[in-house]
Amino acid sequence: MEHIDAVFKSIDEHQEEFIDLLRESVAIRSVSADPARRGDCIHMSEWARDQLRTLGVETSLWDLGKQKLSSGEELPLPPAVFGVYGRDKSKKTLLIYGHLDVQPAEKEDGWNTDPFELTEIDGKLFGRGSTDDKGPVIAWIAVLKVLKKLGIELPINIKFVLECMEESSSEGLDKGLEDNIDKISDVTYSCISDNYWLGRNKPCLTYGLRGICYYFVEISCARQDLHSGINGGSVPEALNDLMWIMSQLVTVDGQILIPGIAELVAPLTKEEDDLYDKIDFCVDTFKNETGSHGLIADNKKNLLMNRWRYPSLSLHGVEGAFSQPGAKTVIPAKVTGKFSLRIVPHMTPEATDKLVTSYLDSLWAKRKSPNTFKVTSGHGGMPWVADFRDSNFSAGSRAIERVYGMTPDFTREGGSIPVTLTIQELTKSPVMLLPIGASDDMAHSQNEKINRENFVKGMKVLAAYLFELAA
Amino acid sequence: MEHIDAVFKSIDEHQEEFIDLLRESVAIRSVSADPARRGDCIHMSEWARDQLRTLGVETSLWDLGKQKLSSGEELPLPPAVFGVYGRDKSKKTLLIYGHLDVQPAEKEDGWNTDPFELTEIDGKLFGRGSTDDKGPVIAWIAVLKVLKKLGIELPINIKFVLECMEESSSEGLDKGLEDNIDKISDVTYSCISDNYWLGRNKPCLTYGLRGICYYFVEISCARQDLHSGINGGSVPEALNDLMWIMSQLVTVDGQILIPGIAELVAPLTKEEDDLYDKIDFCVDTFKNETGSHGLIADNKKNLLMNRWRYPSLSLHGVEGAFSQPGAKTVIPAKVTGKFSLRIVPHMTPEATDKLVTSYLDSLWAKRKSPNTFKVTSGHGGMPWVADFRDSNFSAGSRAIERVYGMTPDFTREGGSIPVTLTIQELTKSPVMLLPIGASDDMAHSQNEKINRENFVKGMKVLAAYLFELAA
Repeated sequence: MEHIDAVFKSIDEHQEEFIDLLRESVAIRSVSADPARRGDCIHMSEWARDQLRTLGVETSLWDLGKQKLSSGEELPLPPAVFGVYGRDKSKKTLLIYGHLDVQPAEKEDGWNTDPFELTEIDGKLFGRGSTDDKGPVIAWIAVLKVLKKLGIELPINIKFVLECMEESSSEGLDKGLEDNIDKISDVTYSCISDNYWLGRNKPCLTYGLRGICYYFVEISCARQDLHSGINGGSVPEALNDLMWIMSQLVTVDGQILIPGIAELVAPLTKEEDDLYDKIDFCVDTFKNETGSHGLIADNKKNLLMNRWRYPSLSLHGVEGAFSQPGAKTVIPAKVTGKFSLRIVPHMTPEATDKLVTSYLDSLWAKRKSPNTFKVTSGHGGMPWVADFRDSNFSAGSRAIERVYGMTPDFTREGGSIPVTLTIQELTKSPVMLLPIGASDDMAHSQNEKINRENFVKGMKVLAAYLFELAA
Repeated sequence: MEHIDAVFKSIDEHQEEFIDLLRESVAIRSVSADPARRGDCIHMSEWARDQLRTLGVETSLWDLGKQKLSSGEELPLPPAVFGVYGRDKSKKTLLIYGHLDVQPAEKEDGWNTDPFELTEIDGKLFGRGSTDDKGPVIAWIAVLKVLKKLGIELPINIKFVLECMEESSSEGLDKGLEDNIDKISDVTYSCISDNYWLGRNKPCLTYGLRGICYYFVEISCARQDLHSGINGGSVPEALNDLMWIMSQLVTVDGQILIPGIAELVAPLTKEEDDLYDKIDFCVDTFKNETGSHGLIADNKKNLLMNRWRYPSLSLHGVEGAFSQPGAKTVIPAKVTGKFSLRIVPHMTPEATDKLVTSYLDSLWAKRKSPNTFKVTSGHGGMPWVADFRDSNFSAGSRAIERVYGMTPDFTREGGSIPVTLTIQELTKSPVMLLPIGASDDMAHSQNEKINRENFVKGMKVLAAYLFELAA
């Protein structure tokens, strides 16, 4: 830790340079969802490769194959950037994951500034990718730049895996990692900076994500859509059956009605229970920010537990019914209702599928409808929960304390970041989620930003984390 | 009736000429829904005006004003054709309504022939508008042509109201009729040929139509859509409330759960009850044609009564929820459920609205949800039921017997033809629906046709009806 003050000082002194580097990366329109921007995505991977190579990182580009569009057209996937910095067998090895692609953005969507031109207003750096996820990637590059500039030897070996398809389901990455499993088998720890603080003021480390199970309930009453004038009153209607089935899944206050689900949920330990009270989270702010008319739990602990450590069931919509504005007098012939469960330990997609299917079948038997009924489940994803007391989290926590002067909150998230589990499983290393942006960064939305302070202090946290891990 | 055999003979002899006239009208692409075809619609009205004028009908075109498109653009409405044939005060006056516009059609939609080129295959005249509604309009013109040719004086005065916007909600027609109310105030009877036989083999006369009440149930849980990962389990969801509300409206076998509705329905008279057994209708054929998996009633009488003389409630869909293919993990912020009731005597939209709103309010109170809830009703339409024993129907029935050698079925329809009520109310005359096409004519669908036999015999029925009315 002898060097850390010099490192912090250098980060402060060179922050404009690093913001310029972020500006350069934001200007590359690496929108992975837009086939017309595929060239920019490939360029973005090469740009990041060049940045790392200049710093002395051994780099290679992983060819991830082709993407098949729904049109049948095939597009090359942008390569993943793999980097190795240090091969000292006496040191531990940290795998750093980040992504280089961004969500679509147009000025016309309601941006106050050009989304691809990083613009600072009142200490906020606005631009697509500023916080998701170019900012954190540039922060890592900045740390290496400073260490190199100061001639400080890295206390730990680093491996980089940077992809450019994260916003498009990380297509190709799993196969890329599996094909190169021997290159990441020596990883000791993994760190992902691709989520956000719970609030605006207090840093956090994230140790859990929920998984997901998605279901399709298809009911058909006729060969083709019928007319409610001509046929209304003659046929048991599919949408009526579906609405009834879907109304039997969860109560108004979020209690899941599927027998057996509650029994699968891991019990709350004293240690986890103790975490919640300390967490910097305001129920009223949450209510205001979502603009919701009511909440299922009105105290902090229960609300956070509902979002993070208990399963939830949400209804998403109906395919095949009338969904446009106006009035149409159709009796839809075939409708597909969609809902999902967010799952938590010890739930698995397999066990959840079994309970859900069996409950839906029993509802259908009770309904006594002559219509046809089919349940299918989409691709399920496992929940992820790490041990927030492990040495990875301890290092992260000490790094944050050193920079911010406060212990971070240990948080979970209600959604999924599938690469977390992939990396944990393939490297067999403990993974930590270390967010550097704030909750109001508007990732995926208009006017995405990262605060200059979060960006600069984020670099310091990452630098300190390297030394704490090695300590 | 002395002339009728000569009339029938002349119709038979000149049928090719009348089919050519139908061919000429079908070739005019008067698609009222397509702004690009507005010129064709105007041309179609002028064409019909010219046909009538050549026969000695005094004609005028009613300017119906402009149509405002959703784009803000204004288009001229095609004029309605008004015609007067005979002003003999000692005779009765018949108002004949028909429409000259058609549904859209493209060969690519699945037509076996060019939809705008009348093509005969196995005695079927395929073409858009062949049965809906150019065929019946041309049949009337053919009758006048034959009478003129034979030098037979009309036994009755005729007034024509032909519009060219029927497939687009008859926009402008109500105002056109109201503006010209003095020109139709002397009408004794009205006749509309714009529906179809119940089956393929037996003619019918139609004495009833259901009305409609349409409802929108809007529920909102948040300011903007939420993410089921981040927020699932925190907010009582609008779509869950909506599915529950909509599941409480009607049972699987079509029983309406709204208190008070059943009490409004006119009791079944012995006379009406007696009609059903005679009607030529096959439950199995109906089931096969709709491709439905089950029926609410499995005998003819109950099924027809459910479709015609009892109200029905159909769920149409949800606006604001996810409706595309695939999986999306949205919690929709605001959803609007849509359903309608087909109403029958003595229900009125006002009385129905009151019962529906009050029931929905009571459901919402029971739900105890913190979300916002709003019910609105769309434009309601009254049911129409005529006295099938009146002199108009007797004349129609005798005309059919003379041509087909059988008594027609007296039928109703489950849907609405709003112009029926408008004409009845404005002319204060009894209206009869006299279909000439068969149930399999595929109006509004691909491969619309009218059978040559229906077309030719239809002309004879219309001619005989004129003489029977006058008798």
